[in-house]
Amino acid sequence: MNGKDRRRVLITSVPFGQADPASLAVLKTAGADYVLNPLGRRPTEEELAEMIGGFDALIAGGETITDRVMGRAPNLRLIARLGIGLDKVDLAAARARHIQVTYTPDAPAPAVAELTIGLMLALLRFIPQADRAIRQRKWLRPVGRRLADQTVGVIGVGRVGRRVISLLTGFGCSLLVSDTAPTVNVGDPINVHWVDKETIYRDADIITLHLPRTAATAGLIAARELRLMKSHALLVNTSRGELVNEQDLVEALREGRIGGAGLDVFAAEPYTGELSDLENTVLTSHIGSMSHDCRARMELEAAREVARFIAGEPPLQPAPLERLIDAPADESKPVRS
Amino acid sequence: MNGKDRRRVLITSVPFGQADPASLAVLKTAGADYVLNPLGRRPTEEELAEMIGGFDALIAGGETITDRVMGRAPNLRLIARLGIGLDKVDLAAARARHIQVTYTPDAPAPAVAELTIGLMLALLRFIPQADRAIRQRKWLRPVGRRLADQTVGVIGVGRVGRRVISLLTGFGCSLLVSDTAPTVNVGDPINVHWVDKETIYRDADIITLHLPRTAATAGLIAARELRLMKSHALLVNTSRGELVNEQDLVEALREGRIGGAGLDVFAAEPYTGELSDLENTVLTSHIGSMSHDCRARMELEAAREVARFIAGEPPLQPAPLERLIDAPADESKPVRS
Repeated sequence: MNGKDRRRVLITSVPFGQADPASLAVLKTAGADYVLNPLGRRPTEEELAEMIGGFDALIAGGETITDRVMGRAPNLRLIARLGIGLDKVDLAAARARHIQVTYTPDAPAPAVAELTIGLMLALLRFIPQADRAIRQRKWLRPVGRRLADQTVGVIGVGRVGRRVISLLTGFGCSLLVSDTAPTVNVGDPINVHWVDKETIYRDADIITLHLPRTAATAGLIAARELRLMKSHALLVNTSRGELVNEQDLVEALREGRIGGAGLDVFAAEPYTGELSDLENTVLTSHIGSMSHDCRARMELEAAREVARFIAGEPPLQPAPLERLIDAPADESKPVRS
Repeated sequence: MNGKDRRRVLITSVPFGQADPASLAVLKTAGADYVLNPLGRRPTEEELAEMIGGFDALIAGGETITDRVMGRAPNLRLIARLGIGLDKVDLAAARARHIQVTYTPDAPAPAVAELTIGLMLALLRFIPQADRAIRQRKWLRPVGRRLADQTVGVIGVGRVGRRVISLLTGFGCSLLVSDTAPTVNVGDPINVHWVDKETIYRDADIITLHLPRTAATAGLIAARELRLMKSHALLVNTSRGELVNEQDLVEALREGRIGGAGLDVFAAEPYTGELSDLENTVLTSHIGSMSHDCRARMELEAAREVARFIAGEPPLQPAPLERLIDAPADESKPVRS
C-alpha cells in the first residue's frame, strides 16, 4: 500500500496503547496512519471538531460526537468506540452520513463488575475514610457492615449486572434483581429474587445500577426514589452518571436520608461538584473499564475494526442502531410490574 | 443477689454495646456491676493499671495486659478478651495468678476476610487514590488490574485465611497457599496450590497474611522477603502489624520494589508513621472486626463468659494456654518445605 492509499486514523481515547501495544501494532500492520490525541485528555466538542478534519476513521473514548463534529470530517467513514456506552454518539446523524459505528460491548464488563464490588466494600467498611484519616494522623474506628449480611438490589442484568450478581453470590448476599427482560438467565439462582424496581428501592440495603443511558433511564434515581430507600441504603453507580439526579442525591446524602453513595460516573466528567465534599461518598473517576486486561481488549477490538474497515471487511461489532435509534422507549422502559 | 455479692466488671473495649445492646443486657441479667471505659479509647498500660484495681473481671479490647497490670487487681479472676489475638496478654502471668483468660476466636473472621478483599480491590483499582484526587478536584484515570487475573498467595489458612480463599475463588483468582498445617482442608480445591512461602514471595501478584503473632511469625516479612517479591506485588496484612518489618516495607515501597501495601494493622497503634505519606498504600485503622454483626457477636460471647464466671460455670472459649505458652515455636514454625 503506498502513501496516498493509507487511511488516516485519529485516536482520541486516552490512554491508548499503554496497557498493551498490540493495538498499535494492528493499526500499523493494517496500513493505518494514526495520530494519538495530542491533548492527553478527552476533547471537548469544539476541540474534536478542530481535530477531526481529514481523518477516515476515529477511535473514540467517551467524548461527545455530534452531527456538527461529523460534518467537519467529510472523509470519516468509521467511528470505532471503545467500551459499551453509545449515548454520547449521535447515532442517527452517523447513519444519515453513512458513517459506520462500532463498539466493544463485552470487553469492559469484568473490570466494571469488580470495581462495583470494590465500591461496595469501600462504602460498607469506610476504607477511603479510614485511609484519609490516617494520612491526617487520625485513627477512626467506624463500625461497618458485612456484605454477606446485605440485601443487594441489582437494577440491570446485562453484561455487567450478571457478573456483579455472580460475584455477590460468592459473598452470600441476598439479591433482588430487576431489568427490562425479566426472563434473563442469571446463572445460579440461589438467593436471587426477581422483583420490580419499587421493591428494590424500599427493601435493598445496597442498590447498584447496571443500565445503559437512554431517554427512559435518564434520571431514574431522583428525589422520589431516594425517599423510598432505607436510611442506611447505599447507592452504587458504575453505569452512566445521567441515571441519577445528582442534585437530589446530594440533598439525600446531606440530610442523611440514605447511608452513602459509591459513584464512578457523573453527568459531567471530570466531576467537580458537591458530592466531592461529602463524607458519605466514595468517588472514582470513571475507571470502571480501567484494568490492564480490559483496556487492552477494548483497544485491540477497536483497532481490529479499523483494520477490517481498511481491508473492506464488515465490522464485527456494529452499534445496534435499530435497537438504539428506532425503538428506544420500548428497549429500556423501566419495569413497573 | 444483693449488692455485696455483685461482681465488678471493667469494660475497656471501645466501642462496646453500640452494635447491639444485647451484651450489656447479658451482663445486667448476670448481676454484673459494669463500668464502661471512660477514656473512649484503648488505655495505655499505665492507664489500665490505674483503672483496674477492685474489679473482678475485665472485658478487654486490644490493649496490652502485663503482669504489672494484673498485679494491681488482686480480685481479678477473668480476662474476657474480644477477638482472636492473645499476643498482647501475658498469658504466663495470668496462669501464675490464677486469672482465667477467654477469647472469641471465631467471631471476627467473616468481617476480617471481607475487609481483606476490600483492601485488595482498593489497591488494584486505586479507589482511595481516585477518591482523594476528586476531593481535590483532580481527575485521575489510573489503569489498574483485575483481581481475577492475579495469583494470590495466602499465608495462613486458619479461620480467616480459609474464608479469604473461599471469597477469592468466587473471583476466579489463582491461589498459592501456605501454612504450618499443610493438610488443612480449604474446601473447594480449584485453583488452590499448596506451596512453600518462598514460592509465594516469588510468584504471587498479591500476598496476604493470616497468621497469629508469635515469636516465630514476628518479622516474617522483612527486607529479604520483600526483595524476592515481584515489582508489582501487593502486600495485604489484616492479621498483626508485627508480622511485617515496617521500616523495610517503607523502603521497598519508596523505591518501588513492590507495587503497594494494604494494611489494617501496625506494630504500634494508633499508627502515625511514614506509611501514611506514601501514595502506594491503603491504610485502615485496625477495623478488621469492625462490622456490626461481628462486633455484636464478639461482645456477646465475651459478656457470656463473664455471666458464666459469675455463675461459677467453666468458660466456653478459654485461651489455649498449652499451645501458646508451652509450645510456641512448634506451633507456628514457618513452613520451608
